[in-house]
Parts: sequence; structure tokens; C-alpha cells
Amino acid sequence: MSNSLKTKRLYKKSLKNGEIKRLNTLKDAISKINHLLLHVKKEGELYQKVCDILIKTGEYVFICIGLLDSQKNKINGIAFAGKEDGYLSLMNNPVVMTAETGKILVVNDIATDTFFKPWRSEALYRDYRAMAAIPLIYNKKIIGNLNVYSGVENSFKNQEIKFLNEVANDIAIGIKSIRYEKELERNYINTKRALYETINSFALISERRDSYTAGHQKRVAALTSAIAKAMKLDSNITEGIYFISILHDLGKMCIPLSILSKPACLSKAEIMLIQSHCNEGYDILKNIEFPWPIAETILQHHERINGSGYPYGLKDKDILLEAKILAVADTIEAMSSHRPYRPAIGLNKALKEIAKNKGILYDGLTVDVCIDLFKNKKFKF
Amino acid sequence: MSNSLKTKRLYKKSLKNGEIKRLNTLKDAISKINHLLLHVKKEGELYQKVCDILIKTGEYVFICIGLLDSQKNKINGIAFAGKEDGYLSLMNNPVVMTAETGKILVVNDIATDTFFKPWRSEALYRDYRAMAAIPLIYNKKIIGNLNVYSGVENSFKNQEIKFLNEVANDIAIGIKSIRYEKELERNYINTKRALYETINSFALISERRDSYTAGHQKRVAALTSAIAKAMKLDSNITEGIYFISILHDLGKMCIPLSILSKPACLSKAEIMLIQSHCNEGYDILKNIEFPWPIAETILQHHERINGSGYPYGLKDKDILLEAKILAVADTIEAMSSHRPYRPAIGLNKALKEIAKNKGILYDGLTVDVCIDLFKNKKFKF
Repeated sequence: MSNSLKTKRLYKKSLKNGEIKRLNTLKDAISKINHLLLHVKKEGELYQKVCDILIKTGEYVFICIGLLDSQKNKINGIAFAGKEDGYLSLMNNPVVMTAETGKILVVNDIATDTFFKPWRSEALYRDYRAMAAIPLIYNKKIIGNLNVYSGVENSFKNQEIKFLNEVANDIAIGIKSIRYEKELERNYINTKRALYETINSFALISERRDSYTAGHQKRVAALTSAIAKAMKLDSNITEGIYFISILHDLGKMCIPLSILSKPACLSKAEIMLIQSHCNEGYDILKNIEFPWPIAETILQHHERINGSGYPYGLKDKDILLEAKILAVADTIEAMSSHRPYRPAIGLNKALKEIAKNKGILYDGLTVDVCIDLFKNKKFKF
Repeated sequence: MSNSLKTKRLYKKSLKNGEIKRLNTLKDAISKINHLLLHVKKEGELYQKVCDILIKTGEYVFICIGLLDSQKNKINGIAFAGKEDGYLSLMNNPVVMTAETGKILVVNDIATDTFFKPWRSEALYRDYRAMAAIPLIYNKKIIGNLNVYSGVENSFKNQEIKFLNEVANDIAIGIKSIRYEKELERNYINTKRALYETINSFALISERRDSYTAGHQKRVAALTSAIAKAMKLDSNITEGIYFISILHDLGKMCIPLSILSKPACLSKAEIMLIQSHCNEGYDILKNIEFPWPIAETILQHHERINGSGYPYGLKDKDILLEAKILAVADTIEAMSSHRPYRPAIGLNKALKEIAKNKGILYDGLTVDVCIDLFKNKKFKF
């Protein structure tokens, strides 16, 4: 074998080894990027970290991810790594330009490529010798590009372009996942807020008609929430008890105002009519699948644990905890407030009343917690 | 160099090359698994595909992913690839067993390891020679394990265990992401449904008091929805117009029933009181951040495009499209129905009335679409 042939072969072999090594390095980078995409929850972080991983391969001098500004129809470099040195602030630099076609653009030799002429000297000054720009496609639209600058001309071989395309695809998948989650979160939060506000308005409307009970539901809700917190109930139950309480007299909407606000003793028929507010409230709400037992609790909030309540005379074990708490708070608030048919009885008498009937009409633990709130924890309506 | 030393070195080198190749194969597998995890939306699919990828490396004879059945406190094999051949249905097989500790378990030689004695013959019969079981940890709890069986004893070196641990971590991240998205989706759907149902109940309640307008809102909502669809409006607007319509007379809750259902001519003051239902409805709903302009539309639904409406005498360009559609549907439904103070005027006369006032009181396009619905598309209340 002639020496020159030997040298050529050795050169080819070392070239091949170099290429294998390079592709292996890039494979490792893809693995890191994929791993990153599983974790990352913010788009900005994703872009920056992808640039960082690619630059750390040591194979490139400058990496930049650009995003399309759809109004101005141009790409803005939003994350980069490596030797930028003011390159992105050059007017109409290639990062800004190469997004429109949606095709991969490779400039094998920046020093000679005519396309690159306008930025050639700036690029060579920064040791950029070759460039590849890969579009980022999301929902079939170009949203930006991945720009990779190499310090060696002709370094973007087919295999490597395939690799960079894979990186671009993975970025797009990552963006999709992040945006989908963000949208879901936003929709959920907005809908939840609309639900909360609707329930509150629901409560408001039922208080609008009947000024005597206006504010009653809100005050009861403050007390039941405090009791639930003091009992250290699950946060979902505590949240639910607020909404249950704020709506508990909704059924009074269906009772003639003339009876609701009659400043005199009521007939038996009138009392029965007023008592029907539990069933009426239940009927209005029973078909709504709230995450809390709102309708059922409203139906039960005048039940008493010895079975003397209405509408069904349920006993202790058959009454929901929420209804037991609501019964105590409702009684205390009602006795503390003025009613058309009687003046306020007062908080102290109300507390004595529930203490006297602890374990008879009212749930023992609830009574203890409630009295403790007023006596020791400075709870006030 | 002696021949035996040479052979030893060559053997070592080939061993090293074999190991490098093996680790490279496994690296590729991790890359594929990571890529898979970005795509996959179902847990079952994730488990099965991970098993498939690992078996396709050619390095293992059997792969199985087990999930903890927290009630029975044992692991069930839920996905596998390779030579199973009834292994998973063996009583208390190692897949079932090795979850409790939360530690990686390696059996280097199944033929001699005492731990493996109970299943040794079954394992050897299936060409299992070594085993590694890696726990899957999610939210700091063991949720299952990844079981890898090799056909070569002592094949689970440190590097490879590290790799398998990485696979297990990635599976756990994938599960976390899938479960989080599923939970978000579920919460969103449930909350949205609760919101829809609450709005419907809101409507129901306002109709309960006043039997003359009961059903009115529902019928108007059917017509406005049909108009919006015929106009090919955005699905969000079409959805919104249903809820706007179903609630549009909510403000009547605040007007004494004695006036609402008075079977006689109304005084000027009484008419003003009834007209206030637009503002009352707006007041009740204005603070709710619905994804639709419900309160604003209700406020405007008695405005007329020539400025002759109430409460503000707004003109064409200042009236929401939703309010223009609602105005037409509301008028037609009201004229078609019986009222306390007059009998039904009838659908035909109602259609003539809006046709006559097209472009004067009512939006032209809405009138055309609406008449077309009744005359040609067989729309019925």
C-alpha cells in the first residue's frame, strides 16, 4: 500500500470515527432534551434549556430559538446560547428571516453562500461557518425556528439534519403539551370562578326579595366555615359547607313574601308553608352535580338528632355532618337577629339554647366547637 | 507479548466493545421511551410500549411492568413483552412480590440465588438467568415496578442498573403527567357541568315564582340558539346565547308578583317597575366573570336599533349582537304566548310585526334568519 493511500484511508477512518462520535454526542443531547421536556412546565425555560443542552455538546458555536411574531410576521430570537455577541440585534438577521418557508434551510459555507452575503462578515467575525435553520411546527403552523451555527463548513450532513429535525419536533411536542396544560388550567380556574360567583349570586338573589333574611345566609356561612376549620375537616368539605350555607334558605324564594315577613303569629298552614323551604331548595338544586352535597344538606338542615326535626324526622346517624353543623349555625344566627314576628333574642341566649340541647337536638361536637369559637376564639358575626 | 496475554486482552477488548454496544442500544431505547412519553396519553399504552421498546433491544428475554393493587397490597403484572409463557399466573411470582421494599432488587444468577428458589425451575424453563426489579415511585409512593429478565447471568452491571432506574423514573414522570392532565380534564368537565346546571337552575328558580313566564326563557333560548346556528356564529357565542336567553328575565324576581301577573292595564309607574327587570338582572349577574357577556346582554335586550328601547335608548351600533338576536326571539315568543293582561296574539302576527319593523326596531339580518327558520326550516317552539 502506498503511503498516500494509507494516509487517505486513515484520514477517512478518523473522519468516520469523528462522525460517529459526533452523532453519539448528539444522541445524548436528544436524550437530555426529551428528558427535559418531560419535566419543564414553562415555555421560556424549555427554549433556554434546549439551547443550553445543544451548545454543551461542543459541536456548535451559536444556537438560537426564534418565535414567530404573527402580527409583524417576523421571527424574534427568544432564547440563545453560545457566541451571540450582538448578532440577534442586527437588522433582518437570518434568525429573523428564515421562518416563512416552513422548510429546512442549510447554508453549508457561510463564506461563499450568496444567500448569506448580507450578514457574511458579521457571521464570519463570530466564527460562524455553516448554518441550519429548522422550522418549529405546532398545530400545522410555523411558530418559529431552531437556528444552529457550526464553526466548521459543510458540517451539516444528512444524519445531523435528521437529528436537528428530531430536536425541533420534540420542542414542538413539548410546547404543545405545555400550552395544552396551561389552557386546561386556565379553563378550569375560570370555570371554577364562574361557578363560585354564580352560586354567590344565586344566594344574593334569594336575599333580595326578603330583607329580613338578607345577610343571614352570609353570616351563617361565616360561622359554619369557622366550625369546619376548627374541626379540621377536609378542605373540600370546608369549601362545600360555605356554599351550602350561602344557599341554605334558597327555597324561601318559593314562599309568598306576605307570609315570610308577617309580623304576627303564623297559622299551622302558614308554618307548614314556611317549612317547605327545605324541600323547595332541594328541588331547585337536586339536579346539579356539585362537588358537594348542597341539595341534600339543605333538605336536612332542619332535622334534629333526636328525630324531632323536619321534613323527615331523621335521626342522628342519618343526618349529614354538614347538616348538623348548619343546624347549629342557623339556629344561633337566627336567634341573634331580629325577625318580623319577634325581636332579636340575643347571642348569649342562643348559645345557652344550643348548650342545653347538646346531644338532644344538636350534634355534641358541633355545639362544643361552636361555643368554643364564641367564648374563646373571639368569633363574631 | 505472550499469546495467552494477547488472547486475554482481545477478550477484554471484545467484552468492552460488547458492553459499549449494549449500553448504546439501551441509550437508544431510553431516547425512544422519552419520545414515547411525550406523545402517549393513556397509561395502559405507556406501559405496553415501554415493554415493547425494551424487548426490542434484544438484550432481555422478558419484561414486565407491575402496578400495586393498594387494597390487596400486591403487585399485578399489567403489561409485558417477551417470553411470558404463563409466568405471571404463577402463584406469588417475583413480579407480584418485589414491590414492598421500594428498593432495587437484582438477582444475578437465578440458578443459584436462594431468594429465587421458589420460582427457579419455572424461571430457568423460560430461559430467565438474571433479574432486576426497579420500583416505580410516584408522589413518593411505590406504585409498581419494572421487571427485567435477562437470558445471561451476571448481566446487570452498575451502568445498566442506572439505565433501568432512569427508565423507571421516566415512566413515573410519564404517569404523573398523564394523571395530572386527566385530573385537570375531569375537574374542568365537572366544574363546567356544575356551572351549566347552576345557570339552568338559576333560570328555573326565576320561573317558579311566575307561572306566566314559566317556559318563556327556555323557548326563547331554543329560538336564539337556532338563530345563532343559522348565522353560523362562533360556537362560543352560540353556547353563550343559550345561557343569556335562559336567564334573560331573571330580574323579574325583583318585581312584585302582584304587578307581574296583574290581569289589567298597568299604570306608568307599574310599567317602569316592570322595565327595571333589565337593570335588576344586570345587577344580579354583573360581577360574575362568565365566558360570555350575559349581564350586558340582559341589560340591553329591550334596546331597539332606532334608539326607542330601554333602559338607555342605545342605537344599532352600540347594541351587542347577542342582544339584537335576543330582542327578536323574545318579542316573537312573548307575542305567541298568553299573558295575564292579554290573550296570545299568535305566531303569524308576531312574524309580521318583526318583518314590519325590520331595520327599524329589529336587526335586519336577525329578522331574515328568524323568519326563514319559521317559514322554511320548520322551526317550532
